[in-house]
Amino acid sequence: MIERFAAIVGEAHALTRADDQAPYLREWRDRYTGKTPVVLRPGSTEEVSRILALANEHQVGIVPQGGNTGLVGGQIPSQEGNEIVLSLARLKAVRNIDAAGSTMIVEAGVTLLEAQNAAQAADRLFPLSLASEGSAMIGGVLATNAGGTAVLAYGNARNLTLGLEAVLADGRVWHGLRRLKKDNTGYDLRDLLIGSEGTLGVITAACLKLLPMPAERETAIVAFQSPDDALKLLRLAERHAGQSLTAFEFWAARAQEFALRFMPNVRDPFADRHPWYALIELSQARGSDQSANAMEYLLTAASEDGIIRDAVFAGSLQQAQDFWRLRDAFSEAQKGAGGSIKHDISVPVARIPEFLMRAASVVERVCPAARPVPFGHFGDGNLHYNVTQPEGMDRAAYLALWTPMSDAIFELVADLDGSISAEHGIGQMKREALRLYRTPVELDMMRSIKQALDPKGILNPGKLL
Amino acid sequence: MIERFAAIVGEAHALTRADDQAPYLREWRDRYTGKTPVVLRPGSTEEVSRILALANEHQVGIVPQGGNTGLVGGQIPSQEGNEIVLSLARLKAVRNIDAAGSTMIVEAGVTLLEAQNAAQAADRLFPLSLASEGSAMIGGVLATNAGGTAVLAYGNARNLTLGLEAVLADGRVWHGLRRLKKDNTGYDLRDLLIGSEGTLGVITAACLKLLPMPAERETAIVAFQSPDDALKLLRLAERHAGQSLTAFEFWAARAQEFALRFMPNVRDPFADRHPWYALIELSQARGSDQSANAMEYLLTAASEDGIIRDAVFAGSLQQAQDFWRLRDAFSEAQKGAGGSIKHDISVPVARIPEFLMRAASVVERVCPAARPVPFGHFGDGNLHYNVTQPEGMDRAAYLALWTPMSDAIFELVADLDGSISAEHGIGQMKREALRLYRTPVELDMMRSIKQALDPKGILNPGKLL
Repeated sequence: MIERFAAIVGEAHALTRADDQAPYLREWRDRYTGKTPVVLRPGSTEEVSRILALANEHQVGIVPQGGNTGLVGGQIPSQEGNEIVLSLARLKAVRNIDAAGSTMIVEAGVTLLEAQNAAQAADRLFPLSLASEGSAMIGGVLATNAGGTAVLAYGNARNLTLGLEAVLADGRVWHGLRRLKKDNTGYDLRDLLIGSEGTLGVITAACLKLLPMPAERETAIVAFQSPDDALKLLRLAERHAGQSLTAFEFWAARAQEFALRFMPNVRDPFADRHPWYALIELSQARGSDQSANAMEYLLTAASEDGIIRDAVFAGSLQQAQDFWRLRDAFSEAQKGAGGSIKHDISVPVARIPEFLMRAASVVERVCPAARPVPFGHFGDGNLHYNVTQPEGMDRAAYLALWTPMSDAIFELVADLDGSISAEHGIGQMKREALRLYRTPVELDMMRSIKQALDPKGILNPGKLL
Repeated sequence: MIERFAAIVGEAHALTRADDQAPYLREWRDRYTGKTPVVLRPGSTEEVSRILALANEHQVGIVPQGGNTGLVGGQIPSQEGNEIVLSLARLKAVRNIDAAGSTMIVEAGVTLLEAQNAAQAADRLFPLSLASEGSAMIGGVLATNAGGTAVLAYGNARNLTLGLEAVLADGRVWHGLRRLKKDNTGYDLRDLLIGSEGTLGVITAACLKLLPMPAERETAIVAFQSPDDALKLLRLAERHAGQSLTAFEFWAARAQEFALRFMPNVRDPFADRHPWYALIELSQARGSDQSANAMEYLLTAASEDGIIRDAVFAGSLQQAQDFWRLRDAFSEAQKGAGGSIKHDISVPVARIPEFLMRAASVVERVCPAARPVPFGHFGDGNLHYNVTQPEGMDRAAYLALWTPMSDAIFELVADLDGSISAEHGIGQMKREALRLYRTPVELDMMRSIKQALDPKGILNPGKLL
């Protein structure tokens, strides 16, 4: 059987040796590992189609994988060793860039960074941006409906996709690479596949929306006394800057402290320490210091209202990059301080202050000296509520508290009408939690759809549902 | 059986007399008429639930109806007389407005205008806007994923919806009124129901996104020599005004001529006649003449580049309203000139000029003296390519050409990678065409989903699929 699969892609692209397979069977945080008889690396949509047709015929589980940067184990096969890993990494063509029409067709194995660069070379912006963009591939980015730091102004992966090409469970190819802004001809198949984590079809290419490159960007870091003040500044920014507000990233003092201690090339933008911070970015299509004026106006108003403690403007592109480097360092910096229990939650934006206050009590109850390191996309209501172990505690003993800690945080999130996975998806990690936090009616609807589109259950078994 | 249905809503809300039923059985253009044993007007989601449970048990077709403004017959029952019309018009509560959180929960029977007004009363903008907004109800607006004149900047109904409450075919209520900006917990059920034209579930309420009210708006009408020049101005506007470009509506000289001849209170903004026109609107969150400056800058640049023949700025709110009244008059004005064969198509924006040129030849071939009256949402690639009868021709004889005319236009649209229904949906009108213009794989996927969520086929039978 493995030989029949291998024959489709050629021996060189069917990996059966343990050390060839290794990079596909564990993810960077080592939370999930799996086994597989073979990693297949097809070189075309047609090969993907033949693989799925064969797999469906013989009811063999297929685990699609892109850049292997997912954080919930969705891209890793089970330990059973009977699921085939389907790497889309060789589908690397940028098939088309239509600068005039502001669209781009890229294959699943193009990394997010490569897609951004291809757009930039055509003087266009593909705004989706996230920490792992150098490795994350478009196929996985869409399969998980990835978010990141630009969602506030430009939306998530779903909002930036016009059309898809995908292979269905039985191997048929859905040619849906439309590049229309409006199309009301039937059910929204595109948005159904986006975010379905490879359980309804394998995305092989996408038509993405491009935007005009902003002519100017203004970046500042501000310091707050409280999350309440951050919320006030967000509202002020929405009112005064409108759609030119392109980032509002938020973090606690401890996130910054860890970044300064454990990461190279990171600097404190302020002389003093403050309890909370945000990075604010304003962008304008037309260059005439509008963003600089708007930023100054905004922060002057905020200062007069007593909303902010301090603010630093980026005086150069270099300084703006320094600000972003600080922001992007938080996740990795936590490693230096020991084990962390991580949550990717969202709540209605106005409830973030309440969430932060109550979550601190939750943590205190589950593990008294544990250290919350909240940061994230404030403007989207999305926080990475990560909790680092108490100083001196045994790492494994702390991580053994993952379930009670998460359960308690999720309970709070549910109480605030929030989501237990704002942007990372469900994968293996939150499958049990999904059953608790979405209603039986919703789960039934999802199961019916899964059954309809993948009746033999070969697509990413044991994930999401 | 009718009595059992009537008992759910009460006698007063179960209409069985012909004249009580009449307004529910024909739409305003008189293209579709139907028959029904009873029109049910439930007063709550719970009553909708009981109606669907009973209908599903006995396999009775249910035709959901909102403001009865749909243009493709989706809301009208068949002539068989065995389908029940389910009017959502009594579900009129604005359940919640969260101005701070910029969300609003409204029931299906709230009209679009009422929803806009409710938002405005809370100093917020609900931007979706279309000609029939005084009658169109939120339930139908979402069921058809309505578009309109504000899609360019704010998106269509789908893009403006955060959560749904809907009743499924078997009567179960899906409580999905989330108000989160980000939520990656499973399949995108919301976007699947939106645009499904009542064939997958009955939407009873929605959580909608609100935006800050723009502090200033600048409106202008410009005149062009050609659609090519309109495209150039759109690109210039995208580059210079970015996301503050909130409307780019386009029309042919004949559309304006008909409006001036057949509609009251409409004035020509120019002294001279021009071949093509567009209404451009720029909006800004912050009021400091930015929009006026940007508009002046844009149109000066366009004039210097020889892109526009003339331009008129709205000097007052009154004049801006006059401009919009002219734009909104085109559809109705055509009645004055006889019968019209209408198309709601989209193509990639850059191909609009080619479409217009080739469509004129198509019309010439099918009916030589027929008069194209194209107008629409240029910035979305969406044109209402309406073709009015030749002067003096018999109206019925002309309308008998609907199928050959539409087939020929749709063939051209397909050749340009366009859509045969950009914003009006499929309903009864384009059901046959859908089978020709979406692929067998897509149709199979849709049928599988329909079968999964409405196995007895009671929801809006004979519509869409």
